Amino acid sequence: MMTKDRTPSRNVPMPSVRRLPQYLRLLRLWRQQGLTHVSCTRLAEALRSDPTQIRKDLSITGTVGRPRIGYEIDTLIEAIQKFLGWNEAIPAVLAGVGNLGSALLGYDFTGMGIRIVAGFDSSPEKIGKIVHGYEVLPVGHMADFISKQGVQVGVLAVPGRAAQSVADLMISGGVQGIWNFTPAAVSAPPNVIVERADFSASLAALCVQLRHKPTG
Amino acid sequence: MMTKDRTPSRNVPMPSVRRLPQYLRLLRLWRQQGLTHVSCTRLAEALRSDPTQIRKDLSITGTVGRPRIGYEIDTLIEAIQKFLGWNEAIPAVLAGVGNLGSALLGYDFTGMGIRIVAGFDSSPEKIGKIVHGYEVLPVGHMADFISKQGVQVGVLAVPGRAAQSVADLMISGGVQGIWNFTPAAVSAPPNVIVERADFSASLAALCVQLRHKPTG
Repeated sequence: MMTKDRTPSRNVPMPSVRRLPQYLRLLRLWRQQGLTHVSCTRLAEALRSDPTQIRKDLSITGTVGRPRIGYEIDTLIEAIQKFLGWNEAIPAVLAGVGNLGSALLGYDFTGMGIRIVAGFDSSPEKIGKIVHGYEVLPVGHMADFISKQGVQVGVLAVPGRAAQSVADLMISGGVQGIWNFTPAAVSAPPNVIVERADFSASLAALCVQLRHKPTG
Repeated sequence: MMTKDRTPSRNVPMPSVRRLPQYLRLLRLWRQQGLTHVSCTRLAEALRSDPTQIRKDLSITGTVGRPRIGYEIDTLIEAIQKFLGWNEAIPAVLAGVGNLGSALLGYDFTGMGIRIVAGFDSSPEKIGKIVHGYEVLPVGHMADFISKQGVQVGVLAVPGRAAQSVADLMISGGVQGIWNFTPAAVSAPPNVIVERADFSASLAALCVQLRHKPTG
């Protein structure tokens, strides 16, 4: 019963989904600078990536560029935001106000689909403290808070050994998704999405590329 | 000149590389618990993943399991560590001792291929402070430190607007790789690997899965 299906229901290519935020970031910057149109070639140059790959990635949002004109930036931004659900901001709570948790409370998630509404911790020294404008609340109140406020996402930044028990509290409160920043794997019922924000994957990629470099 | 090739030289499948750390973490845990052998099926169950995918991923390390016996855990751990270069710890410096930078200074990277040897910042209020046992050093001394100590990796945790200039300092000091925690894209000469630790990718994956869930 405690399994989860990692593949989304409609065969969305997740590697493409994961690349969309970097396009969005750049497009927003360029729009701010007054640009109105952009080509895959230009995006590819800026991101040191492949134009064909970018075209394919963008097509999952239902947008296609026009030959020689490219994409209208406004339309493309809107399409990516809508596809990701980033034109809204769903409420999230954070558990574990350590170094990483504090960094996340201070992070500006505007335009990234979530809004952290409260931070929880179990440590008496932390409860009641103000961190980046959030009063740290006792983790014992979290499930009730989630259920009363209709919180949809739980951001898990507790130590690995507490990951499952705190995730269970989030689930009992009624979250639909857990963003797991701990090193531990978390089990959840099939209707709860668990996504890991695990930087050991990128560290592995860095180390392997360093080791396989042609010359030092 | 300032481009970089994202694909490693020997056609190593990077998605497989990125999944190796989660196998390694689990294998180390199981070894600690006294297990001597493991099958792909068991790994797949624990990680809610696909056994065939896991077999394929593990094969890049040059290890194959035996029918019905599976993999010897000791041998498999050794093979993954060796492939990633995680049986060593190459020296790294960190720039930007904010919330995220502090979290990284406090993180235990043992068995993950790097060892942070110093933390740098530009802020006079931070310089000289002790953070997780590291005295924060002035960023102006960083290039010299890198070159004298033979530091190979720079961990970039500065604000996005400072990303390129601080990366340039790291490069001038002689790092071979940059682990970029900023939201900005960083340019580097072809012989310097830049790998981004960007959690917006996993947030996009979470949001899309939430939106495409069959039922609420």
